[in-house]
Amino acid sequence: MRGAEALLRTLVAGGVEVCFTNPGTSEMQFVAALDRVPGMRAVLALFEGVATGAADGYARMAGRPAATLLHLGPGLANGLANLHNARRAGVPLVNIVGEHAVAHLPYDAPLASDITSLAHTVSSWVRTTAHVGAIAGDTAAAIAAARQSPGQIATLITPANVTWEECDGPAPAPRIPAVPLASDDAVVAAATALRQGAGTVLLLGGSALHGRAIELAGQVAAVSGAQLVGSTFFARQERGAGRVAPARVPYGVADARRFLSGARRIILVGARPPVAFFAYPDAPSLLAPPEAAIITLTRPEEDQVEALARLADLLGAKGPAPTQALDVPAPPVGPLTPEALAMAVAAAIPEGAIVIDEAITGGFPAWNASVGALPHDWLPITGGSIGIGLPLATGAAIARPARPVLCLQADGSAAYTLQALWTQAREGLDVTTVLYHNRAYRILELEYQATEAGAAPGPQAAQMMRLDGPTLDWTSLARGMGVPASRAYTAEDLSAAIAAAMREPGPHLIEAMLAV
Amino acid sequence: MRGAEALLRTLVAGGVEVCFTNPGTSEMQFVAALDRVPGMRAVLALFEGVATGAADGYARMAGRPAATLLHLGPGLANGLANLHNARRAGVPLVNIVGEHAVAHLPYDAPLASDITSLAHTVSSWVRTTAHVGAIAGDTAAAIAAARQSPGQIATLITPANVTWEECDGPAPAPRIPAVPLASDDAVVAAATALRQGAGTVLLLGGSALHGRAIELAGQVAAVSGAQLVGSTFFARQERGAGRVAPARVPYGVADARRFLSGARRIILVGARPPVAFFAYPDAPSLLAPPEAAIITLTRPEEDQVEALARLADLLGAKGPAPTQALDVPAPPVGPLTPEALAMAVAAAIPEGAIVIDEAITGGFPAWNASVGALPHDWLPITGGSIGIGLPLATGAAIARPARPVLCLQADGSAAYTLQALWTQAREGLDVTTVLYHNRAYRILELEYQATEAGAAPGPQAAQMMRLDGPTLDWTSLARGMGVPASRAYTAEDLSAAIAAAMREPGPHLIEAMLAV
Repeated sequence: MRGAEALLRTLVAGGVEVCFTNPGTSEMQFVAALDRVPGMRAVLALFEGVATGAADGYARMAGRPAATLLHLGPGLANGLANLHNARRAGVPLVNIVGEHAVAHLPYDAPLASDITSLAHTVSSWVRTTAHVGAIAGDTAAAIAAARQSPGQIATLITPANVTWEECDGPAPAPRIPAVPLASDDAVVAAATALRQGAGTVLLLGGSALHGRAIELAGQVAAVSGAQLVGSTFFARQERGAGRVAPARVPYGVADARRFLSGARRIILVGARPPVAFFAYPDAPSLLAPPEAAIITLTRPEEDQVEALARLADLLGAKGPAPTQALDVPAPPVGPLTPEALAMAVAAAIPEGAIVIDEAITGGFPAWNASVGALPHDWLPITGGSIGIGLPLATGAAIARPARPVLCLQADGSAAYTLQALWTQAREGLDVTTVLYHNRAYRILELEYQATEAGAAPGPQAAQMMRLDGPTLDWTSLARGMGVPASRAYTAEDLSAAIAAAMREPGPHLIEAMLAV
Repeated sequence: MRGAEALLRTLVAGGVEVCFTNPGTSEMQFVAALDRVPGMRAVLALFEGVATGAADGYARMAGRPAATLLHLGPGLANGLANLHNARRAGVPLVNIVGEHAVAHLPYDAPLASDITSLAHTVSSWVRTTAHVGAIAGDTAAAIAAARQSPGQIATLITPANVTWEECDGPAPAPRIPAVPLASDDAVVAAATALRQGAGTVLLLGGSALHGRAIELAGQVAAVSGAQLVGSTFFARQERGAGRVAPARVPYGVADARRFLSGARRIILVGARPPVAFFAYPDAPSLLAPPEAAIITLTRPEEDQVEALARLADLLGAKGPAPTQALDVPAPPVGPLTPEALAMAVAAAIPEGAIVIDEAITGGFPAWNASVGALPHDWLPITGGSIGIGLPLATGAAIARPARPVLCLQADGSAAYTLQALWTQAREGLDVTTVLYHNRAYRILELEYQATEAGAAPGPQAAQMMRLDGPTLDWTSLARGMGVPASRAYTAEDLSAAIAAAMREPGPHLIEAMLAV
């Protein structure tokens, strides 16, 4: 058996059953092996940033890694921005990156580059397979590294000769590393803080934002009177009617500081201490009051459910946690203001939906409007590199084909990785994209105000933040990628278009022409 | 004066007058300074790979660096693939990459990443400005590094606080480093080899492929009887009727080895020894016969004209070199086969055109058909990372606004960086793109044959190389980006469409529906 086939069989044996690809010559052996190995679904992306972002979306929903197949250093480079986001999401992911045959490397052929250095910037584990006898074991080790809690990026670099030479066969599924437990001291310290009354915040992040963990956190908050808060950005949160509903730390520095101003004790549950996304002249980096004590119940890699269950026991928390009441807004009518758009989206969220949020300035209004929507999962940005939304939706839809995906997508960010629409069309994915067309990097217009103390931009600066002259036509772009598209100018247009898109199978894009 | 303004004024003083941008919050000071500093043209790209590829195209035509403005590590990451290509082209280029304020770095905010390691993979010079007092000098040093012959990539990383703090002002234009000269021994060795008669190849690369250098090389070849050969890939070649016309080393390993099989002495003139683009099972990496001596007249960074002039003197080469006769093919009619497409393109090349070639499998037929076309410049791929064509055309058009740009663009590669079309529209650039629509990564279908010994791909493998299901609609995509577009199904359609596009100002895209 050739090395490439052993690699592929080891992936499948280790539970890696989807590979998001954009191969080149040095990965042709892997491509050839796809038809010899059952159990691997290969999904072609027209750009590597789509492949890596889709692998992130897959992992967030499936809870296990997909693979990517990337062509040499430049292929990895094109995927790095969304790997950066995936790293911040704490998801498991296995990159397979081709390399020139070892004998070819000394000639410094045009595509040769320093793959290892690129890989280390986003990966917790990097290895170059030294000889064909090591490829199966290296693949198993990559899977195990990816599944290290809470999820890591593992990058395996495979010289072409290692994929075409003969080896003994695949490796068995690796042992999945155990999830570390919080210490007794950490649980006791959290309990002590929670008994101190007002001013205690239970701050959730990572896998504490879904499943049994968020329910237990709700019980703990209820019995102790602590304020239940979720991180600004996270990989996935279960929310909506019938779910525990933490408040969310706002994005803006001033808003976040105001929100946290009453905190005297912040207990981190899989969350990191809240810090500003960017620095600004004369603004602090830390969002919590300096006098607030930071207490860590669980680090992101620790078992959130186990620690919260012990904490609940210590505090005598019993019975169901208070949950959010059903509160679906009435579908709005009239001009498509940001507020109307948010309400139309919230009204349209179907039960069990996966909501992808790269709406940037449009995302927080949609979040607020949908607090009491039908129960759904919310997948926002994590690492702040734009161009994640459409790929994330693609991967989430592949992981959970029975669930509708609603992608809230800003126009500026969408332009980064619009090729994801083609993959949605090819794979027939049930993704409805609401494209927030405001013809600007609106967030930058706000950030400009923040860094320039409110000054208006001059003409050249304004051109750097406007997306007009010409205006992007997103219905044309979507159709060019093979995705049916329509345009909404009013709130009722938008509601009707979302409903129609949800009724039909396959992807749709609705260009929401914001009245701004 | 703030650091950002000093940076910008130093760029302009140093002859850097165009900046291809995609800024974020950490670069807002630079954006604000654009309206305070005359002489800098800021060109917004909707994706960083467009910005870096455009800077490459600008440098190839202008012979001096443009700047890029990139947002933190992910912004640089998105630009890396085309920086890899620019590095292989040997062009000057200055990257300005924002970084978090120094005081913000310890908090590991979501967008924090290892920018320095990313930068080193493509840059010959990397520096992070340590304090605002250093920013002007660092910028001048970056320009000087970029202008080190033949051209290098310099990356300056600027923490946000350095851009908003006050400094003394800009630095003057740096001294441009001298171009090193070939040694006397190298010139004598080349002359000796050229006097040995048949079997001597004069292999040109880099800046030996245009201007006075290619004329001198033609004289030297004529007087000595050496075979005049150009590298397979290069930054820019002047060619067509009335120009010296070296043969070109073919791309395929077998073809290239056959082409070079008679070589006993290969004299490198700004060229690197010919090596295979990829390794294949049982194929060699070196394309020249093992017995051929490799003699270096000039390394890429040395003065090609000066060395060739000395060599011509030694050999007594006088008078004009033999040049290519005018031989424009008649515009073809009938089905749009690859051959007809090549002839239609060759027939349509206007005098003084800049031809961008990322047609991949379609590029070599177009090259062959246009040997005797009206005089033009040819800018092909260099580093082999796809997605360079549309950005390269964008930058070339900005560097040479009076010259028509004809971009020969494969569909698979175009999908990587199609956002360049929007920049072409916004800037009103006279670029005519002929989009080779063959609905496949055709090169991969050939490479699959090469690595799999002619075996046909199975169904999953075939899906990794086909761009159908759905077919991309490039007229919709172009119009969505604001570029007028049309579709050609026959050779006469194509000729008419190119002529019409050339008559009108601004960008056009013609989707050439290949009969394949």
